[in-house]
Amino acid sequence: MGANEDGKVVVRRFWAALDERDWAGAAATLAPEYVGVWPQSRERVVGREAFVAINEHYPGIWRITVERLAGEGDQAASRVSLTDHERGRTEVAVSFFTVRDGLIRHHEDWWPEPYDAPAWRSDWVEPMG
Amino acid sequence: MGANEDGKVVVRRFWAALDERDWAGAAATLAPEYVGVWPQSRERVVGREAFVAINEHYPGIWRITVERLAGEGDQAASRVSLTDHERGRTEVAVSFFTVRDGLIRHHEDWWPEPYDAPAWRSDWVEPMG
Repeated sequence: MGANEDGKVVVRRFWAALDERDWAGAAATLAPEYVGVWPQSRERVVGREAFVAINEHYPGIWRITVERLAGEGDQAASRVSLTDHERGRTEVAVSFFTVRDGLIRHHEDWWPEPYDAPAWRSDWVEPMG
Repeated sequence: MGANEDGKVVVRRFWAALDERDWAGAAATLAPEYVGVWPQSRERVVGREAFVAINEHYPGIWRITVERLAGEGDQAASRVSLTDHERGRTEVAVSFFTVRDGLIRHHEDWWPEPYDAPAWRSDWVEPMG
């Protein structure tokens, strides 16, 4: 956990710990002054203890796969898929992180949901495979 | 538009052109083999011409601000806000890009919508300012 460690490395460790339900391991990737936000619901999570409490209480057993990861230095962005195999559900989270001294200081998650393709653009799109 | 130009520079040019409704300028940041996807609606846009047609027909006049930008080399991620001042609406798009030889080859957009904060975690969150 070097001071100059790239943000992408820290973010990968963060998601791997959550995938393993290792809440302490995930919290160890967070700075003491950690702030996480869910802008869609206007919620803010302040500090490692609140982060762990939420994950302990989070409904469902979610396995997490990092699908995209981009960043440089202290900035990183990820797209992960989260699958609850018991309920047969998969969610997508897109996140931005600010890392300093090898720890996540700021984190925002976006949770997009499926929607119907609009008719007006149907002439210029194909269905995704 | 150098061959080794960082993906972030190209992505910034892409959004600036869309903000100015300069469809040709935006298309000039795309590779001939451009593919864009909207995974939530399972739509795929293939090629510059389809991209321009969609933007020409897109309902509303959207001003675009790049709020976050992360990436390195040929990978980049952005979060932009899009505001239709006439209708008083703001949307958020989170996107990942793959750039090669200074042109966008692959692009995915995610469009998250507001949702209600769930009650089960209310003890451990604060309202965002």
